[in-house]
Amino acid sequence: MLVTGATGFIGSRALEPLRGRGFEVLDTGSHTADLLDPGGAGQLIRDTRPTHLLHFAWYTEHRAFWTSPENVRWAEASLRLLRAFAEGGGERAVLAGTCAEYDWSAQNALSERSTRLAPTTLYGASKHGLHTIAQPYADQVDVALAWGRIFFLYGPGEHRDRLVASVARSLILGLPAPCSSGEQVRDFLHVADVADAFAALLDSDVRGPVNIGSGEPVSVRDVALALGEAAGRPDLVRLGAHSHHRDDPPRLVADSRRLREEVGWRPSRTLEQGLRETLDWWRLHGET
Amino acid sequence: MLVTGATGFIGSRALEPLRGRGFEVLDTGSHTADLLDPGGAGQLIRDTRPTHLLHFAWYTEHRAFWTSPENVRWAEASLRLLRAFAEGGGERAVLAGTCAEYDWSAQNALSERSTRLAPTTLYGASKHGLHTIAQPYADQVDVALAWGRIFFLYGPGEHRDRLVASVARSLILGLPAPCSSGEQVRDFLHVADVADAFAALLDSDVRGPVNIGSGEPVSVRDVALALGEAAGRPDLVRLGAHSHHRDDPPRLVADSRRLREEVGWRPSRTLEQGLRETLDWWRLHGET
Repeated sequence: MLVTGATGFIGSRALEPLRGRGFEVLDTGSHTADLLDPGGAGQLIRDTRPTHLLHFAWYTEHRAFWTSPENVRWAEASLRLLRAFAEGGGERAVLAGTCAEYDWSAQNALSERSTRLAPTTLYGASKHGLHTIAQPYADQVDVALAWGRIFFLYGPGEHRDRLVASVARSLILGLPAPCSSGEQVRDFLHVADVADAFAALLDSDVRGPVNIGSGEPVSVRDVALALGEAAGRPDLVRLGAHSHHRDDPPRLVADSRRLREEVGWRPSRTLEQGLRETLDWWRLHGET
Repeated sequence: MLVTGATGFIGSRALEPLRGRGFEVLDTGSHTADLLDPGGAGQLIRDTRPTHLLHFAWYTEHRAFWTSPENVRWAEASLRLLRAFAEGGGERAVLAGTCAEYDWSAQNALSERSTRLAPTTLYGASKHGLHTIAQPYADQVDVALAWGRIFFLYGPGEHRDRLVASVARSLILGLPAPCSSGEQVRDFLHVADVADAFAALLDSDVRGPVNIGSGEPVSVRDVALALGEAAGRPDLVRLGAHSHHRDDPPRLVADSRRLREEVGWRPSRTLEQGLRETLDWWRLHGET
C-alpha cells in the first residue's frame, strides 16, 4: 500500500499502526515522485501498483494554507493520483478531508449526514470540491473510497505557533503564555490518534465521509489550563491576553458516531494524557 | 479573449455575439492546444495572454458524458486552465456549469440562491466540484468569475438521438416519432440563445453562479406537439410510445431572474420560432 505525505505531521505517525494491521507500506523513499508533477503520480503508481492508498499529502504551510492558491494545485494533483490509482487496479483509498468543509455556523455537532457543507476558505473549498468529484468517481470505477474529515490536532512536532505548542513551550521556558479568553469550544485529537484512526478507517470497509474527531467538546480555555496544571505553572496561563478573533466560531465539535460505531475506533489516550505527552516532548525539544 | 470549445455545439455559436459586443476572439486554430495535456493550457495562455476567458470545452459524448471518468480529467484540466489564465494576468472568466449540479428533487424553480446543490451523476458532480474550487480561487486571485448553469438545449446540429432532433427528423421523413408520455416539465433554450447569454454574461460584471435558462416551463409533450404542428404532421407524434424513465424528474426549470435582471439578457426567439428553425435545418440536413 501507498501512503502519501508519509513524512508529514500525520502521515509519519500512520506507518506504525498500518504495519500493525498487516499492511505492507511501500517505501516511497526509493520512488521520489513529486505528486505536483503532472507525470509523477502515474509513474509512482506504475512502479508500485498499490492495492491500498492513504493520501495525506497537501500544502500545509502554517496559516498560509487557508488561502494559498497551492490548494488548487493539490486538488488537481489528488484527482490525478486517484485516477492513476484506479487505473492501476487500486481497490481501497482513504483521503484526508477537513472539518473546514462544514458550515461553521451550525449549532450542533458537525455531522457527515446532516450538516451543510459550506466552506469559507480556499483550503476548505478545495478539499470539499475534491471530495465532491472523487467520491462519485471512485464509486463508479469500483474503488472503495472513504474521506476522513480531520478536526483539531495537537501533539509532538506541531508548528510552534499553534495553540498547544505555543502554550507548552512558554510554560516550559517559565514564560507567560498569552491566550484568548478561550471560550471557543473545539474537538481535539492527538496527532498519533488521528493517524491511528486513518489506519483503522483504511482497514474497514466504510465508504464516504467520516469525521476524524474525539466527539468530546473542550474549550480552548480548558486546554490551556490543563497544560498549566500539567506543567505545574497554572499561574503562567494568561487567559484574555489576546483578543478573540471575530470570525472564530464558538463551537466546532465532531459528531464522531460514524468513526466509533461503523469504523469501531476509539482514541487511545485522554486529552490530559496527550497534553502531558506533548509537554514532555517540548521539554526535550523546546530550545530547537 | 479566449473561447475554449469554440468548435462545439454552444461555443461555435458564441463567436458572433462576442464579436458583436466588441470582443477580439483569438483564433485558436493557430494554437493547437490540447487542454487535457498538462502543459497545453499554460502554453496557450503564454502564447495569447487573454484578459477574458469563456470556457466551454468538456467531454460531451452523447449519453456517455453523464458517467464517464473523462469528467474528472476535464475538471482537472479546467482548474489548470483557470490557474494559467489567472497567473497570466487574466481578468474575467466565465465557465460552463450545468443544471445537473442542483438537487433534482427540489419542488420549485431551481435557484442559484436557495436550491441545494446535490448532483447525482459524475458529470454534475465534476462540474459542481470544479465550481466549488474555482469560485473562491478566482475571488482570491482577483479574477472576476461567473459560472453559467446550462439547462436544456436544442437547435441545429444537435445529436440526432436527443429529443428535439429525433422528433424533428422523424417528422421530416414522414415517419412516426415515438415519445414518452412527455409529462416531465423542462426549461428549453435554443443553442444560439444559450451562446448569446454566455456572451452577455461575459460582458457583464456579474460574479458567481447564473442559470442559463428561459425560466419558462414547458412539458416534453408540448415540445413534441409543437414540432408536429410546425411540420404539419401532428398525427406522427406518438406520445406514450416510450415508457417514462423512472429516475426522470418531473420538473426541472430555471429560476432565470439573475440572468434577466442582473445580466439583463432575454432570449431572442420564442420556443415555437426556435423549433421551426430547427425543423428547417433538419429539412436540409436530415439525410446526413
